[in-house]
Amino acid sequence: MREEEIIEFIKRRMVPQQTTVIAGPGDDTAVVSYNRKEYMLLTTDCVVEDIHFTRKEASLYQIAKKAVAVNLSDIAAMGGIPLYALVSAGLPETFTRREIIQLINGLKYMADKFHFDIVGGNLTRSEKLFIDISLTGKVEKQSLKKRSGAKPGDLIFVTGRLGGNRIKKHLSFTPRIKEARKIIKEYSVTAMMDISDGLSTDLTRLAKASNVGFKIYLDKIPLSQDAIKIGGNKGKAIQHALNDGEDYELLFTVSKHNRKKAPKSINGLLLSCIGEIVKEKKYTGISIDNKKTAIQAKGFSHF
Amino acid sequence: MREEEIIEFIKRRMVPQQTTVIAGPGDDTAVVSYNRKEYMLLTTDCVVEDIHFTRKEASLYQIAKKAVAVNLSDIAAMGGIPLYALVSAGLPETFTRREIIQLINGLKYMADKFHFDIVGGNLTRSEKLFIDISLTGKVEKQSLKKRSGAKPGDLIFVTGRLGGNRIKKHLSFTPRIKEARKIIKEYSVTAMMDISDGLSTDLTRLAKASNVGFKIYLDKIPLSQDAIKIGGNKGKAIQHALNDGEDYELLFTVSKHNRKKAPKSINGLLLSCIGEIVKEKKYTGISIDNKKTAIQAKGFSHF
Repeated sequence: MREEEIIEFIKRRMVPQQTTVIAGPGDDTAVVSYNRKEYMLLTTDCVVEDIHFTRKEASLYQIAKKAVAVNLSDIAAMGGIPLYALVSAGLPETFTRREIIQLINGLKYMADKFHFDIVGGNLTRSEKLFIDISLTGKVEKQSLKKRSGAKPGDLIFVTGRLGGNRIKKHLSFTPRIKEARKIIKEYSVTAMMDISDGLSTDLTRLAKASNVGFKIYLDKIPLSQDAIKIGGNKGKAIQHALNDGEDYELLFTVSKHNRKKAPKSINGLLLSCIGEIVKEKKYTGISIDNKKTAIQAKGFSHF
Repeated sequence: MREEEIIEFIKRRMVPQQTTVIAGPGDDTAVVSYNRKEYMLLTTDCVVEDIHFTRKEASLYQIAKKAVAVNLSDIAAMGGIPLYALVSAGLPETFTRREIIQLINGLKYMADKFHFDIVGGNLTRSEKLFIDISLTGKVEKQSLKKRSGAKPGDLIFVTGRLGGNRIKKHLSFTPRIKEARKIIKEYSVTAMMDISDGLSTDLTRLAKASNVGFKIYLDKIPLSQDAIKIGGNKGKAIQHALNDGEDYELLFTVSKHNRKKAPKSINGLLLSCIGEIVKEKKYTGISIDNKKTAIQAKGFSHF
């Protein structure tokens, strides 16, 4: 059973019964009633030793920070801010006092930096280290952006530079909480999500959720130094930017009526227009010499 | 580093910064602001293969139900009702479609039975199966019961029968959501928690949180059939009831002014008065022939 297939099965099986559930399984985070002006956001994400990191490549402080950051990125993707975190950790028997303190310090650093509280958690033994975090956030009702709102003619944007993140960026990326909120405030954003599993996979998800297609200009994809370094040439670097995963940048669409004031950067963070949403449910990449290829979701699969 | 020591370290390090956090790390669940009449409850608990269950002893349907039930028990312990769950699962590579569906069916059964929604989650590969659930609930402000409210003179009660649960009950226990709410409504409950790690450990935690001691009458501890069976004689059965863990019954204290109308059962569930809270911070067990022994926290330790 492939990951997308499991998620489809879960979506069909887990239809929410309470009217207070605004968005259930399927988006970056769940959306539920909160108060008159705001929705509550609920998300969870887990990092597992030897799946998402190795003990050799990263310190426990970095691993703890990453475990928080992947969750913050999901809250950012909905335009929200974080409030409360629960931390559930599986610790190997050999874990020392010093190692536990390193983990806790990494978690606390992120809580202080992003102004949320770690309000509880759970500890268990586990052969492999894992840190599973669930994060509660909130978003003003008018700011909520889902991945399903893209319309034909909308422009497609990404923040930052993509690809090659397996080298090191995946351990030290900055969740785009502030930038997402500024983008939503200043532009007519129609859909938003974070790029966690690779542009090709996540843009395809956005298109499917919105019931549309897309065309992207491959030479407009902003390449990271690492994508260029790993790829060796531009063509291969583009493939890395399309498929590597773990960028944790924002992917969003902007109404075509916003076309003239299309943003170039926000808070010093590069914004790149890479294409547009089309009505026909085709996913097309256009090369610099105008060759068309079908974009396939080749990003990171969790299975 | 022992579990209690880690938790103490976390409590000192993770002092909540937001005034909306009513209770942070240390109780069964976190308590945060919600609306004028109610608090929101946030809890997380995880079951890990070969730590909390083996694949041989239980079906995946049972394992999924247990993963939910341990969280529901935490919400029950605060007098609350569940609202939304996030499910984060680590699945071995060999997992089949049929196995995934069994897990999902177990989760869905519990959601329907206890009237909450599974609103999202996360799937990852993992060598050993784990299911980590975070559960959001709510409780009327006046119904919130913490483990820290016990006062000298209060009577100590437990629901159901204790001990021997490693045999099978730990896979099929009923979280005491309804019973907890009824107990709180009908009696002057001063403190409440669930017995997850064994009566000796959890009653000691309640006493420490409340800054008091206790004396319990060992022959008043309600013994399960399995505790008697495993123990062989009454003395050993009592030791199982004190220390086995995974009872998931309620432990609560009732104001001494309630002494005369001390409950005997609720909704057909046995309620047993096993002792009383004392001012001096000593933890005493009194045998039927009036011998006094110190009760030590010998229940299940996660480390």
